[in-house]
Amino acid sequence: MNSISKPTLLIDTLKAERNIKMMAEKARRSKVIFRPHFKTHQSIEMGNLYRKHGIDKITVSSVEMAQFFAANNWHDITLAFPVNPREIKQINKLATSINLNLLVESVYVAELLEKNLTGNVGIFIKIDVGYHRTGLAPSDPEIEKITKLLKSSSKMQFRGFLTHAGHTYHTKGREETLSILESAKQQLTKLKQKYIAGFPDIIISYGDTPSCSMAENCNGFDEIRPGNFVYYDVMQYHLGSCSLDDIAVAAACPVIAVHPEREEIVIYGGAVHLSKEAIEGDNGFKMFGYVVAPTPKGWSKPIAGAYVSGLSQEHGIVSMPVKELNRFKPGDLLGILPIHSCLTANLLRQQVTV
Amino acid sequence: MNSISKPTLLIDTLKAERNIKMMAEKARRSKVIFRPHFKTHQSIEMGNLYRKHGIDKITVSSVEMAQFFAANNWHDITLAFPVNPREIKQINKLATSINLNLLVESVYVAELLEKNLTGNVGIFIKIDVGYHRTGLAPSDPEIEKITKLLKSSSKMQFRGFLTHAGHTYHTKGREETLSILESAKQQLTKLKQKYIAGFPDIIISYGDTPSCSMAENCNGFDEIRPGNFVYYDVMQYHLGSCSLDDIAVAAACPVIAVHPEREEIVIYGGAVHLSKEAIEGDNGFKMFGYVVAPTPKGWSKPIAGAYVSGLSQEHGIVSMPVKELNRFKPGDLLGILPIHSCLTANLLRQQVTV
Repeated sequence: MNSISKPTLLIDTLKAERNIKMMAEKARRSKVIFRPHFKTHQSIEMGNLYRKHGIDKITVSSVEMAQFFAANNWHDITLAFPVNPREIKQINKLATSINLNLLVESVYVAELLEKNLTGNVGIFIKIDVGYHRTGLAPSDPEIEKITKLLKSSSKMQFRGFLTHAGHTYHTKGREETLSILESAKQQLTKLKQKYIAGFPDIIISYGDTPSCSMAENCNGFDEIRPGNFVYYDVMQYHLGSCSLDDIAVAAACPVIAVHPEREEIVIYGGAVHLSKEAIEGDNGFKMFGYVVAPTPKGWSKPIAGAYVSGLSQEHGIVSMPVKELNRFKPGDLLGILPIHSCLTANLLRQQVTV
Repeated sequence: MNSISKPTLLIDTLKAERNIKMMAEKARRSKVIFRPHFKTHQSIEMGNLYRKHGIDKITVSSVEMAQFFAANNWHDITLAFPVNPREIKQINKLATSINLNLLVESVYVAELLEKNLTGNVGIFIKIDVGYHRTGLAPSDPEIEKITKLLKSSSKMQFRGFLTHAGHTYHTKGREETLSILESAKQQLTKLKQKYIAGFPDIIISYGDTPSCSMAENCNGFDEIRPGNFVYYDVMQYHLGSCSLDDIAVAAACPVIAVHPEREEIVIYGGAVHLSKEAIEGDNGFKMFGYVVAPTPKGWSKPIAGAYVSGLSQEHGIVSMPVKELNRFKPGDLLGILPIHSCLTANLLRQQVTV
């Protein structure tokens, strides 16, 4: 801790490993492939922790991440992001060294791939089960056209149907989240049943941290791809996916000013470190993170009544009751439990494990 | 444009230079030092454009940026961020090679500096003129204590009073913005008058893009430090600081899916590229940027009715009326005029000038 001079991500590897074990065991019990999303951590060390628990298939969300992990001995990667035709060269290069699965949601892009691919790739058709970000509705006639093209392709192997139920991030509770999971399972299963005769090896792949965390099991799918759960965060805590004690990262930020008259501490730690992701806090205020005190072994419980109330580029404003605030001085460290750990970890490439 | 395969910042250098000239001329007319904030661009090329217009004093907001620009021949830098005691080593090193000005807002930190500085630095006392982020109220007795300490210091030269009127970002119009500028001027001038006898060289330094853009002149200050104006952005346009045509940056993002059924285009360009900074759009919707079409020489006017309506880590969702949307296909580029160009430029280190 003493060597930290600027905003730095603290990773509690015991908690991260506990989270990995929990999800890996749930996948094993549910007899599904566990292909965790690595966009959350983008870290070799975290990758090694996964490997220790038997994981060798991963998910990423950019060609850049696929290149990074391919260069670090990950040989089976699903790029869970609609194919960007402008990266076809990089995709062709990747496909020579790893098993690469791509996502397609239009005949137009499938035809582009058929024309421009130089090697073999797996293809998932991205299905929209209700999130309405990307993907085709299960009834969309485009699906039939894509599968026809895949049937005759020598370069593209149809792997199955994949979805991300991102609407589990906007639910009011466990029941609604689990009903999204059930609905996704039904929609994907129906598609699988329709196409399995023509493509006997296809699978259905599902993923998102809230529902995979809350569900007793993931029976009925063939593969799950949650990612955020390795670190969790304040948003997941508010959704009910985890306890506060499961959150495995905190941003260590130097205190630079203490203002008892307005019950605020200013930290070196702003939008370029934490991201501007915010949620509505317990009393209706907008907040950018909970506040903890770093300890030799990690960090304390959240400081009662304290939260990050504002962020500019490099500054963070921590609101804190005076009786707590008086124990901090410029030069001390505070820890911030991030709202969205994926974004904070992406910004804070300087990381320390505790 | 053809070589762009992933989210990339397009910089229209003609517009950026026009913005620089406008502000440099205003500073000259107002007889104030122009010490632009470089946190917006963090770019050697933009620095050179400033140098062309006679600028040799700059502002930054982190030790890291100061190191970066010091290494690139900038010798007079104000670090407009309260001193972070954990970076004293780096500060001491910087002070050996450049004229470095630091910000202090407590006796506690001033004493730490007196004890730990190994060379000479300039000191500004940070004043809070109403933004309430950092700084001391003009009436705060702490100011008297700090100046006493500075009087007897051999390492710290008192440079004067500095403020950032960040509340100009939350005004309802030009009149309110200009009244903030006037109030800041009065508050700082009073302080200067009080201390000038003891410190004949002190100055008052002011800065923020909205008021420096809207004011006819900056008479009455000694120095101005706006930064964002070099690029401007959608937030500044909404505040009335600039025209749409003054915005000098756009994020070029590949189209990856087109969904006419929901009047949406999905782009490769998410929170890790644009930042999650949002404002309320024209019809009350939350929006993350205007949408333009790249052209050989730059980009078009905003596409009518189009805006970035959602961002996840790597995806952006563009809402666009069907009649406009039908001319785009996966593999095309869209340009996004950012809400807050400082954050977008910080994230998009891959940049292309047009």
